Amino acid sequence: MRHSGRTPSQTRQVTLTRNFTAHAEGSVLVEFGNTKVLCTASVVEGAPRWLKGKGQGWVTAEYGMLPRATHTRNDREAARGKQSGRTMEIQRLIARSLRAAVDLTQLGDVTITVDCDVIQADGGTRTAAITGGCVALYDALSWMLAKKMVKANPFKQWVAALSVGMVAGNAVCDLDYVEDSSAETDMNVVMTEDGRMIEVQGTAEAEPFSRQDLNAMLELAENGIRDLFDAQRAALV
Amino acid sequence: MRHSGRTPSQTRQVTLTRNFTAHAEGSVLVEFGNTKVLCTASVVEGAPRWLKGKGQGWVTAEYGMLPRATHTRNDREAARGKQSGRTMEIQRLIARSLRAAVDLTQLGDVTITVDCDVIQADGGTRTAAITGGCVALYDALSWMLAKKMVKANPFKQWVAALSVGMVAGNAVCDLDYVEDSSAETDMNVVMTEDGRMIEVQGTAEAEPFSRQDLNAMLELAENGIRDLFDAQRAALV
Amino acid sequence: MRHSGRTPSQTRQVTLTRNFTAHAEGSVLVEFGNTKVLCTASVVEGAPRWLKGKGQGWVTAEYGMLPRATHTRNDREAARGKQSGRTMEIQRLIARSLRAAVDLTQLGDVTITVDCDVIQADGGTRTAAITGGCVALYDALSWMLAKKMVKANPFKQWVAALSVGMVAGNAVCDLDYVEDSSAETDMNVVMTEDGRMIEVQGTAEAEPFSRQDLNAMLELAENGIRDLFDAQRAALV
Amino acid sequence: MRHSGRTPSQTRQVTLTRNFTAHAEGSVLVEFGNTKVLCTASVVEGAPRWLKGKGQGWVTAEYGMLPRATHTRNDREAARGKQSGRTMEIQRLIARSLRAAVDLTQLGDVTITVDCDVIQADGGTRTAAITGGCVALYDALSWMLAKKMVKANPFKQWVAALSVGMVAGNAVCDLDYVEDSSAETDMNVVMTEDGRMIEVQGTAEAEPFSRQDLNAMLELAENGIRDLFDAQRAALV
Amino acid sequence: MRHSGRTPSQTRQVTLTRNFTAHAEGSVLVEFGNTKVLCTASVVEGAPRWLKGKGQGWVTAEYGMLPRATHTRNDREAARGKQSGRTMEIQRLIARSLRAAVDLTQLGDVTITVDCDVIQADGGTRTAAITGGCVALYDALSWMLAKKMVKANPFKQWVAALSVGMVAGNAVCDLDYVEDSSAETDMNVVMTEDGRMIEVQGTAEAEPFSRQDLNAMLELAENGIRDLFDAQRAALV
Amino acid sequence: MRHSGRTPSQTRQVTLTRNFTAHAEGSVLVEFGNTKVLCTASVVEGAPRWLKGKGQGWVTAEYGMLPRATHTRNDREAARGKQSGRTMEIQRLIARSLRAAVDLTQLGDVTITVDCDVIQADGGTRTAAITGGCVALYDALSWMLAKKMVKANPFKQWVAALSVGMVAGNAVCDLDYVEDSSAETDMNVVMTEDGRMIEVQGTAEAEPFSRQDLNAMLELAENGIRDLFDAQRAALV
Repeated sequence: MRHSGRTPSQTRQVTLTRNFTAHAEGSVLVEFGNTKVLCTASVVEGAPRWLKGKGQGWVTAEYGMLPRATHTRNDREAARGKQSGRTMEIQRLIARSLRAAVDLTQLGDVTITVDCDVIQADGGTRTAAITGGCVALYDALSWMLAKKMVKANPFKQWVAALSVGMVAGNAVCDLDYVEDSSAETDMNVVMTEDGRMIEVQGTAEAEPFSRQDLNAMLELAENGIRDLFDAQRAALV
Repeated sequence: MRHSGRTPSQTRQVTLTRNFTAHAEGSVLVEFGNTKVLCTASVVEGAPRWLKGKGQGWVTAEYGMLPRATHTRNDREAARGKQSGRTMEIQRLIARSLRAAVDLTQLGDVTITVDCDVIQADGGTRTAAITGGCVALYDALSWMLAKKMVKANPFKQWVAALSVGMVAGNAVCDLDYVEDSSAETDMNVVMTEDGRMIEVQGTAEAEPFSRQDLNAMLELAENGIRDLFDAQRAALV
Repeated sequence: MRHSGRTPSQTRQVTLTRNFTAHAEGSVLVEFGNTKVLCTASVVEGAPRWLKGKGQGWVTAEYGMLPRATHTRNDREAARGKQSGRTMEIQRLIARSLRAAVDLTQLGDVTITVDCDVIQADGGTRTAAITGGCVALYDALSWMLAKKMVKANPFKQWVAALSVGMVAGNAVCDLDYVEDSSAETDMNVVMTEDGRMIEVQGTAEAEPFSRQDLNAMLELAENGIRDLFDAQRAALV
Repeated sequence: MRHSGRTPSQTRQVTLTRNFTAHAEGSVLVEFGNTKVLCTASVVEGAPRWLKGKGQGWVTAEYGMLPRATHTRNDREAARGKQSGRTMEIQRLIARSLRAAVDLTQLGDVTITVDCDVIQADGGTRTAAITGGCVALYDALSWMLAKKMVKANPFKQWVAALSVGMVAGNAVCDLDYVEDSSAETDMNVVMTEDGRMIEVQGTAEAEPFSRQDLNAMLELAENGIRDLFDAQRAALV
Repeated sequence: MRHSGRTPSQTRQVTLTRNFTAHAEGSVLVEFGNTKVLCTASVVEGAPRWLKGKGQGWVTAEYGMLPRATHTRNDREAARGKQSGRTMEIQRLIARSLRAAVDLTQLGDVTITVDCDVIQADGGTRTAAITGGCVALYDALSWMLAKKMVKANPFKQWVAALSVGMVAGNAVCDLDYVEDSSAETDMNVVMTEDGRMIEVQGTAEAEPFSRQDLNAMLELAENGIRDLFDAQRAALV
Repeated sequence: MRHSGRTPSQTRQVTLTRNFTAHAEGSVLVEFGNTKVLCTASVVEGAPRWLKGKGQGWVTAEYGMLPRATHTRNDREAARGKQSGRTMEIQRLIARSLRAAVDLTQLGDVTITVDCDVIQADGGTRTAAITGGCVALYDALSWMLAKKMVKANPFKQWVAALSVGMVAGNAVCDLDYVEDSSAETDMNVVMTEDGRMIEVQGTAEAEPFSRQDLNAMLELAENGIRDLFDAQRAALV
């Protein structure tokens, strides 16, 4: 039994609130239970310099946590003068994942930046960010289509992500902070709608994991992420 | 006539939502119309080093803007590696203002940090931050009292702030982004409940202002801030 | 009675020494009593990037304090690797103030940087910097005229600044370090020759100030700044 | 057929040269074909501050690449003033992996830093660093035992790592630079001697990967890493 | 013939103005012709951490140039966020040189920082800084003696410095900016009163120099520095 | 007698291993006894911006030390976020020295960067870097000639460097770490094949040095460097 009463395969309540803020081309508040992340997608003319002349656009991402999104206050990265290794690792993961949702060659000379800022943290901020960021990205692409910046929508497929892990010897999905803190293994899985994987990142925090554990976790991830795709599609209606 | 239909002395709709996030000792979402700022107050043991042995606590503040809180995306300060002069100026103003609300000598060996993060910007973010931050601070002090970290509540008085300015030759209060961009003079006023001032910062952007202009603006500020005090008191009920 | 024997409305001895150093287009040592600031105005071809195509020039300012300009040594900002919030706040104030002295649309594709470096500090360094910096700016503009870089001198009007404050319950002007350290309120006022204001920045350090206090301080500022205009004009002869 | 003539399951020649440099407590040059990484393990008294009083030591790692370890010169990170996100990601991975080799509670009040500096890069630098770093770590622990800094050797088990990937639709192991550049999926696997996993990090660069692909890659990793354990054990003789 | 009319062995007019500013324990404006450097010596309790327990004090130095000390404006190092390699090189040279003037074992648990800020540059700023800084250091040590912080004056000997060089094939001393810009070789020599050397730094800018050239330059340096010692001693009267 | 058994004029064993790594246009491992420095020369199209239009190329250098090249581990400069003053001083010296080996006007629109990374340190790393870096530079220039990027080899002459010093009252050459730590004077001399000097940098660490000492040290340097030229020429065969 999980401390929250959830079954091993049960995700938390997922909410996707579009147009959460007014200015961005796409703006989504994503909630995985008590984890709340604001994802905005900003369309800016001009691809990065190293892409010049290649006839394609770019999607990138940045990640941040408000200082008191967590149980105890963390130093503000802007004040410390640099982003932590953890922040960099996460924003690189988000960006790679979201690029799989878009046909960059159809994007034109444009950079879309998806900012994922954690308002409140309770485990799974990066998977929430990918899942919500993909909806913000979709909205930004639709905006571009409406503005005739692209001829067809360069959106290829939904991308969503879920954390899974081994807690007290059992595979469970969508770990909250309490579970995350005590997990033997923590794994983040990013998938596409056809059931294939974009990223798998599993880390044994306390105890190595076996192939059998890995398979159990992937099973949970695959099922849970299917629900996330439903939530993404439902959010558009 | 103002573009929003407001009269010169009319503030925007002010909303103060307490306990907006779960972890901070005080957490308030303040809205001045479309300007939305999340203010969290965090209580941490230990005063700054330079106060050691003086038998008093400290209140400080930090300010940030989510990259897409504004019409066009701004670089993330954490990624650029430093806070802008504007950010520093604002967070110093907020901190000085909030310290006027507290009897620091009764606070004990404690630092309270009020983080003000702008979710959506439409003018007046710093005055909203002070007004909302004071409520978050109040909640944090009440939390300390409940935890018996202080014998009596060291809260002294409400502090609130409003922007005023000269727009097209007329004094108006609580400028939104459109007015702010075209104002001849922009002034921020911070007051205490007894009608005295903590800070007055007036800047002629385009045209110097006369003593008469200054008086007209201060009149508007005084009246408007009285309403903010009402909102702060009402939020506690 | 003030500790220096000055009356409340009496400024310190003001000295403006032009051509203090050899290389800058304008170079002025300004002294307000024991406060000494070297102000140099440097003319450089090319306006900032964000002004390109707008057919106007720019005036900016930087401020610094030699490490031992003060009673105890401060860390060198270049060695620490960043400018303090106080430094940024001051140099932004100086720059905004000096821009009011110039018709930027007549300046051409040029940036003038006014560097204000405090050699010795005894209160009022920012107001001295504005007052002396305006003379250095005047000289730089005259140099441009002599070089035929402009058709007419784009100088519009003198800008000068004075600190005022409430000390032991009385309004006084041009506070030195001793007064500044014990003032209840500290206010900096920047004015133009026609008696209007560019900037008013009042801060209650210890005790909020009333409208009556504010008026008393502004009165002192207006009178004192009139003398500064005389000093600026006299320096040109 | 692979461009190098290797079979899909064939790793490159692995060499582990102990005592490569003179000063470090452990110093190993690891070569995976043309990839050469110098790994030094340094024992320093004192655990990190946040571990104080917990009665355990710490193992950390840093990673760097000489500017011309690669085909074209990269900027020196020390000169740019910050480590890239890629560097941070890699050194965090190395550190987590190596901690699995040690019983930290038996290490005493000590920090061991494993520096992994890439002398020449040809794909797989992070997996080589983990494999070689583990030998350097072993030597440092033996040195501690000889110095009687620990009562028993806190080494728990060998940890080694291998890259695998999908190249032109086929699973292959130990990718060199040419393969890495064109791989559809790139995965790094870190294992312990008992065949369990410490880390699995798979990234679809071009095309999502299926469960079947994942299994094929893991199979190759498991077999290849068994050979690395042999090489580690042989190096000690 | 030198462009200034000086003979090869003729230094520029040297002026040492003590007590140039009010706050520092030693404060000297040194002028070598048109080169003007303000040197302040600040006494602070506490030796650097790495000297703790060794029963000795420390002398260090920092160097800076006001942005418009030179013909064209240089970026302010505090604004750029780091000191240049040139600045670091110079301040390390000044510090090493000045330490030769003091018996550090008699200094007590104290750090003296000599700040050398160039007000106006015309070649030879580092040699002027050493020569003037030594007088400021002397004054600071006398201040310590008067305050009974030391039992006897730990000053050992005068240290002074002069630039020499090969210009158009001839050895000359005390190069100004014009000569410095066209010199084949530029050399800085730091000496003690007994005619021995603390530092010799010769750099061939355009053409290597022979032993004969070196000897000619050293001859000039030795003679010129003797005059600097006279100026230092005369400044104390 | 020196602790190593060497005579005062005896250098350590010098080894120059060309093509030590695969990618750089020139790559040399230089060993002066136990000091080992990897020098790579990288040819990149384009001269620095400030040379544009002057029709010449540029040679620059960067220097680094692996964290555990030394007896105790030093912080990694990339992690600390800045290069030390010592590093900057050394890399500036290396770059100036190597530029004397090349006719920059014949180099074309090219920058050659010589990276000198210390693998193991035992005194004399900067002189080893210059000596080995010159061979790497030679190889890079030969590569350019083979690629027809230049019409003739712009190499002018060999440049080599040696440390000399006063140890226990005697002049000795090529100091190792033990001697360097106890030397009264430490001097680095950079020469060209015709026996003239590029750089002379002598520093009295403990005791000033006389002209006689200087001459003794230069004598040793001149002789020792002649052997280094032999080693450089021999390495090409």
